[in-house]
Amino acid sequence: MPRAPVRAIHMLDSETVFMLPGPVKMDPRVLQAMAAPAMNHRGPEFREVLAELRDHVQYMFGTKGEVAILSGSGTAGLEAAVSGILRKSDRVLNLVNGKFSERFADLCGVFAASTPLTFEWGMAVDPAQVDSALDKGDFKAVTLCWNETSTGLTNPIADIAKIVHDHDALFIVDGITAVGGLESRFDVWGIDALVMGSQKCVAAPAGLSAVALSDRAVGLLHSETSFYTNLKAHVEGLKKQDTPFTPAIPIFLAFREALRILKEEGLERRIGRTHRLAEATRAGLEEIDLDLFPDPRYASDTVTAIRYPPGVDDAKFRRVLREEYGVILAGGQAQLKGKIFRIGHMGLCTFGDLAACFTGIEAALQALGHRFDRGDGVEAIAKRA
Amino acid sequence: MPRAPVRAIHMLDSETVFMLPGPVKMDPRVLQAMAAPAMNHRGPEFREVLAELRDHVQYMFGTKGEVAILSGSGTAGLEAAVSGILRKSDRVLNLVNGKFSERFADLCGVFAASTPLTFEWGMAVDPAQVDSALDKGDFKAVTLCWNETSTGLTNPIADIAKIVHDHDALFIVDGITAVGGLESRFDVWGIDALVMGSQKCVAAPAGLSAVALSDRAVGLLHSETSFYTNLKAHVEGLKKQDTPFTPAIPIFLAFREALRILKEEGLERRIGRTHRLAEATRAGLEEIDLDLFPDPRYASDTVTAIRYPPGVDDAKFRRVLREEYGVILAGGQAQLKGKIFRIGHMGLCTFGDLAACFTGIEAALQALGHRFDRGDGVEAIAKRA
Repeated sequence: MPRAPVRAIHMLDSETVFMLPGPVKMDPRVLQAMAAPAMNHRGPEFREVLAELRDHVQYMFGTKGEVAILSGSGTAGLEAAVSGILRKSDRVLNLVNGKFSERFADLCGVFAASTPLTFEWGMAVDPAQVDSALDKGDFKAVTLCWNETSTGLTNPIADIAKIVHDHDALFIVDGITAVGGLESRFDVWGIDALVMGSQKCVAAPAGLSAVALSDRAVGLLHSETSFYTNLKAHVEGLKKQDTPFTPAIPIFLAFREALRILKEEGLERRIGRTHRLAEATRAGLEEIDLDLFPDPRYASDTVTAIRYPPGVDDAKFRRVLREEYGVILAGGQAQLKGKIFRIGHMGLCTFGDLAACFTGIEAALQALGHRFDRGDGVEAIAKRA
Repeated sequence: MPRAPVRAIHMLDSETVFMLPGPVKMDPRVLQAMAAPAMNHRGPEFREVLAELRDHVQYMFGTKGEVAILSGSGTAGLEAAVSGILRKSDRVLNLVNGKFSERFADLCGVFAASTPLTFEWGMAVDPAQVDSALDKGDFKAVTLCWNETSTGLTNPIADIAKIVHDHDALFIVDGITAVGGLESRFDVWGIDALVMGSQKCVAAPAGLSAVALSDRAVGLLHSETSFYTNLKAHVEGLKKQDTPFTPAIPIFLAFREALRILKEEGLERRIGRTHRLAEATRAGLEEIDLDLFPDPRYASDTVTAIRYPPGVDDAKFRRVLREEYGVILAGGQAQLKGKIFRIGHMGLCTFGDLAACFTGIEAALQALGHRFDRGDGVEAIAKRA
């Protein structure tokens, strides 16, 4: 039954099911942490915050190596990694199979010599093609968007990492919607730089990014082409509980609280839960005759991208969902606008959230003419909870 | 009388007088705005936030021209201005007379061809020397730190602006601790780019910067050397109520609330109050035999820098102040570390805050051996309230 009265909502309230692929719903403890009064970012309390955050961030990345936290979105973290490690003349192979990997390649073009290797959106990066491109070109580095949020696809990072390593290239990875939601083997895979965003699997507010670095990457850090995102300055700052520039203090406090919550749950359990939610999502979709957008073998565990069935209009569907059922989902971006919708099920998402989300999806789809057995999607989810 | 029990505090609580030169104390409305649940930054509500913010930011800058808001500290805003307007080969004259103008010159060195023109710390930039430097060199732009927070000095911006204009150079100004606290005549003076920070005179949390641009500057914007701080993308985004990258949503909400509060007070009244607070601070200091650090003719209205009297130790003074009297002040930076302390009296600072601050200062100074007539400083402040 639609809720009454109908109202436009885009914020999580007690009746809203907020399931974007980031930002995601936050724990009240995280919101509370943010509302703290002014704090001296050069005083001993904030140094304690930074010391605790450094430990938590290493735990989250699964590394004992150097990490940095930047006051800026995931893109700022990617810029820090690329501009800090590479130089203008360095050739970098950008693996592109969606909007975010495309943006990553654009970013690389500003700070290094970028060569995109493109794949169809929705198809995984093919390690064999990476191998052959690296054989042919003299590439200093390879960039990968591990989890392509725009297509709901997880690239085969372990296989790609092996090939990058065989060619002795640096491996710079966008893990913005992966870290804290997908199993990460930073040291084992030999990633040189891995970037995450605060508003994704960790369920903190938007505004921070973090970077993990290999020793090799740390050794290469320079300050020639960046200033605000100067990774060398950020790494050295954090080691002595400092930041090179004024940090976004409230977001640091919220990030700490979100990472405490992650640690309380345990990284492995968080990743396991995210996987089970994704499997339930995929099972539910199958029951209501919806198709995944990406190659199902590479469907992401943190965000699911779904093709619209014929005749269902994106704007209408998401408006009905939002206004009548309080469910906030994302549409497609760029060439996928109007063709897909996306469900984020990372962070603190529960089976209850997913059931509520599907309740809305089923009602809205039926109202817009898609035919299926109503309730079967939710049932499939409930069975897996 | 010292408070009991003695405790270390660096955060504003009901007993703390928080008077750093930024971040500054925030209104509870601002804190509350930050604690909002997750919001879709691509949804209609956030577009409304951005539309309202654009108006407020134009009001704050005193311009009807283009503005941008970046998720990053004031340094990010400076980087956006420099990297967006200038090119690597452009010669830029950096006027340096303190730590922040020095940093500004360092930043310029990454994105343009920087030539610093230095003045003694605590002395104002001398317009005649700027004139002669511009006569000699072929400079495309001049940078100025309008209010040098590190030395508590306001540079004679109007005189410098005239000279920059006479030489047809671009004028890029760090107004981080000036905008919203000092009278700004953006259009009249002919500033090409003016940058502010959210945690200063506007009394929002740290994490955002804003930039105002002349039409000439807008016409020059390019994307060659920056990505995250790409000013062109930020200006064009904000015009259509969008951001090029995920914004630090909670800080945007808090910034909006702080700007609403500024508008309620009125920019002119805020600036007038800031001036009266600064005059009272200076009068109070004279009464207790303390000297300003900068040339008094250029003493800043938003932050006052004070020389320590002989024998008073910085660390001890500020620890006693903080632990026994709940007063948080800043020390000196770089070459001024240990030599000065600084009082921020921008934003929502009141005469009551200032009286409380001086009550602590007088007690701590006396405890540490400085001799003066106790109570005279506070009296001078009270008389001006």
